[in-house]
Amino acid sequence: MANAFDGDGQEGRLPAREAALLERRTQRLGAAYRLFYREPVHFVRGEGVSLFDPDGNAYLDAYNNVACVGHGHPHVVQAMAEQAATLNTHTRYLTDGIIEYAERLLAYFPASLSQLTLTCTGSEANDLAYRMARTVTGADGVIVTDHAYHGVTTAVAQMSPSLGLGVAEHVRTVPPPDPHERRGPAGDVLAADVRAAAQDLSGHGIRPAMLLVDTIFASDGMLPEPAGSLRPAAAEIRAQGGLFVADEVQAGFARLAPAMWGFERHGLVPDLVTLGKPMGGGYPMAGVVTSPAVATEFGARTRYFNTFGGNPVACAVGSAVLDVLEQEQLREHVADVGAHLAAGLRELSSRHELLGDVRAAGLFAGVDVVREGQPAPDAADDIVNGLRDRRVLVSTSGPHEDVVKIRPPLVFARSDADRLLAALDETLTDLSRVGRAEP
Amino acid sequence: MANAFDGDGQEGRLPAREAALLERRTQRLGAAYRLFYREPVHFVRGEGVSLFDPDGNAYLDAYNNVACVGHGHPHVVQAMAEQAATLNTHTRYLTDGIIEYAERLLAYFPASLSQLTLTCTGSEANDLAYRMARTVTGADGVIVTDHAYHGVTTAVAQMSPSLGLGVAEHVRTVPPPDPHERRGPAGDVLAADVRAAAQDLSGHGIRPAMLLVDTIFASDGMLPEPAGSLRPAAAEIRAQGGLFVADEVQAGFARLAPAMWGFERHGLVPDLVTLGKPMGGGYPMAGVVTSPAVATEFGARTRYFNTFGGNPVACAVGSAVLDVLEQEQLREHVADVGAHLAAGLRELSSRHELLGDVRAAGLFAGVDVVREGQPAPDAADDIVNGLRDRRVLVSTSGPHEDVVKIRPPLVFARSDADRLLAALDETLTDLSRVGRAEP
Repeated sequence: MANAFDGDGQEGRLPAREAALLERRTQRLGAAYRLFYREPVHFVRGEGVSLFDPDGNAYLDAYNNVACVGHGHPHVVQAMAEQAATLNTHTRYLTDGIIEYAERLLAYFPASLSQLTLTCTGSEANDLAYRMARTVTGADGVIVTDHAYHGVTTAVAQMSPSLGLGVAEHVRTVPPPDPHERRGPAGDVLAADVRAAAQDLSGHGIRPAMLLVDTIFASDGMLPEPAGSLRPAAAEIRAQGGLFVADEVQAGFARLAPAMWGFERHGLVPDLVTLGKPMGGGYPMAGVVTSPAVATEFGARTRYFNTFGGNPVACAVGSAVLDVLEQEQLREHVADVGAHLAAGLRELSSRHELLGDVRAAGLFAGVDVVREGQPAPDAADDIVNGLRDRRVLVSTSGPHEDVVKIRPPLVFARSDADRLLAALDETLTDLSRVGRAEP
Repeated sequence: MANAFDGDGQEGRLPAREAALLERRTQRLGAAYRLFYREPVHFVRGEGVSLFDPDGNAYLDAYNNVACVGHGHPHVVQAMAEQAATLNTHTRYLTDGIIEYAERLLAYFPASLSQLTLTCTGSEANDLAYRMARTVTGADGVIVTDHAYHGVTTAVAQMSPSLGLGVAEHVRTVPPPDPHERRGPAGDVLAADVRAAAQDLSGHGIRPAMLLVDTIFASDGMLPEPAGSLRPAAAEIRAQGGLFVADEVQAGFARLAPAMWGFERHGLVPDLVTLGKPMGGGYPMAGVVTSPAVATEFGARTRYFNTFGGNPVACAVGSAVLDVLEQEQLREHVADVGAHLAAGLRELSSRHELLGDVRAAGLFAGVDVVREGQPAPDAADDIVNGLRDRRVLVSTSGPHEDVVKIRPPLVFARSDADRLLAALDETLTDLSRVGRAEP
């Protein structure tokens, strides 16, 4: 895993308090858990764009999209507490909150996407989208991008090549759009690759049910451009009898502002849209948005009940997140600060040899780390850990783990971007002086 | 689905306010959603064992196990609000709450079950258990009971025959333990059925990875007896190379008190235990408990990250639920009130022809509804709707939808049980006078 603490002899770096905590953690939490950083960070408090360690040191959060309106936003906390004290039950009784929330959320979508089903996690949302696509198409095949990540259930882990476990026999991968268009216009190339993947599936007796795409290609290394390149692929999967599913778990909720959803940047309307991480500002909340045709066909064949999905507290919190997005005019804010951050990253790239391409949309940026024109994951790791030592949180991404991934809460200010840029400048200057910081 | 509102001409029964809400709901929520009751109930507030409609009428909740310590318990709400205002982030940073919670929860388990992995839903927990079992055994096959329910992800829906969608080709079903032991000692019969299912899988080239059992057999119709009958089956699946997975999503957390977990009643230690519904008192929270051997093998092969799973708010809420269980001595309370309720149900069964077997453990009871010795789902439906009209909430269960399912919050008092029993007595008396209440 990118930016993973491997524990292999690195415990010695940790202060005694954190070493003791890590020891207890190892005793009780399953070994599949992974921590970030060569020296993991320990947090006890969050506020706005800051996370605080037990000594009161503030870390600038330039990574976490879940706390999209900022850590501990009082309006979100209050909505959660008030609703939890009032009513919290499931969707087999009539309650008002889920209906009000659905109406409000769906107003952000094209008119044809008018049906909401709520789950608790993005994994559940993508898994449900697959159940729906299978039911509606009667087919099983899935096409994803080469280094996609869509979640951790049995079914979607098998559609997430970035986990390193391979993909299932009914899954095919295609290269994500190439920003440099080396094989030709990115949209045409992707559509041709989707057609070839569908035909390869068919050759094995498997018809395609869906093309599932993270509309910002976060784990493929952040590929916002060329905008529009998904449109021919969406048409192609439909021509092949499948559905186009936009995974907006990372891209959605104004992350790529001015766009509210990643698919908007591609000038298309998906058949299904999956939502997650920022939706509840930290409360476990996710969902699937579909056309009435998909919802009706699925509902005619089966029922779907998610004990906690769409409970009144989730809906109150989801609504509070929309309140903040609207009242604090975060779409305008994200577009402004995102442009400022991207310009600053490009300026750094022009001065520091280790930085290559800068790719950004809204407040989501990926910066290639290169040495002699080649991916330099070791240097990317040095940068991420150098920023951590300067109390700025980011991580890495991409098939070569060579892309610095910057994805702060949406309330990140221009001054926060400046602090990030200054810390990155310092880190790069240090690295150019001493070579790799770590053996 | 048992006790489903089918909307087919039944809207006319609804007051105008609820009819309008239902119309908006149908416009915006996916058609796979289902409501309970011939006349769905509309709730706006909950407190303790009561749910309130918009006119302030209190319904006695004898069905909901999620709000296990009562609706809107102030200690749970406060823990959630305080933690959400302080820190809410994920498990890739060191945080104290998850470690404290894991230590505390695992103290309730046998020493060999010492590793916790947290998810958000019981479906995710069972799905993860399957991933773990596959990884550890290198096998794919699954054995479940005839009318099991284990969740709604793609993988576990295919192991949930009660959904009516059939099971996957790598899944076999066995009859649950027969309380009447008509085929012989229930434990021996189940073990023989598991052996036959494993051999049938093997005959199709599929080795068994796990036997997955809801330890109270809730959807099989509530089968607490004979206690101990799972023990030979657990030995048998291990002899066949598979693992024994106890699904405690419904049975766990003192529901079957004095037992904390359903598997305790069977005198065995599972290889994996899955947890859910009551764990967070309404907050989306679930998990898998395993031995170090299982956790280590899984962790060596892959990582597991669940964005919201084990976040500080979930852990604070989970800990608050354990506080209440301990401080309000709910295990003793549940054992006492459960015995009182079961005795009352048996007394009613002795007087009312429609009631057959009463099966109960702790505060979980199933009552067969019969007519001339045969399952009578229509009468069960009449009873559930008659209780709803008397403002008491229960539902139905079982392969024939003929079992009245009673599963109240754990804080249900003797006086609440008496109210339920009186309403049931009245309902049965009415039904015996007029025959079926509904055409």
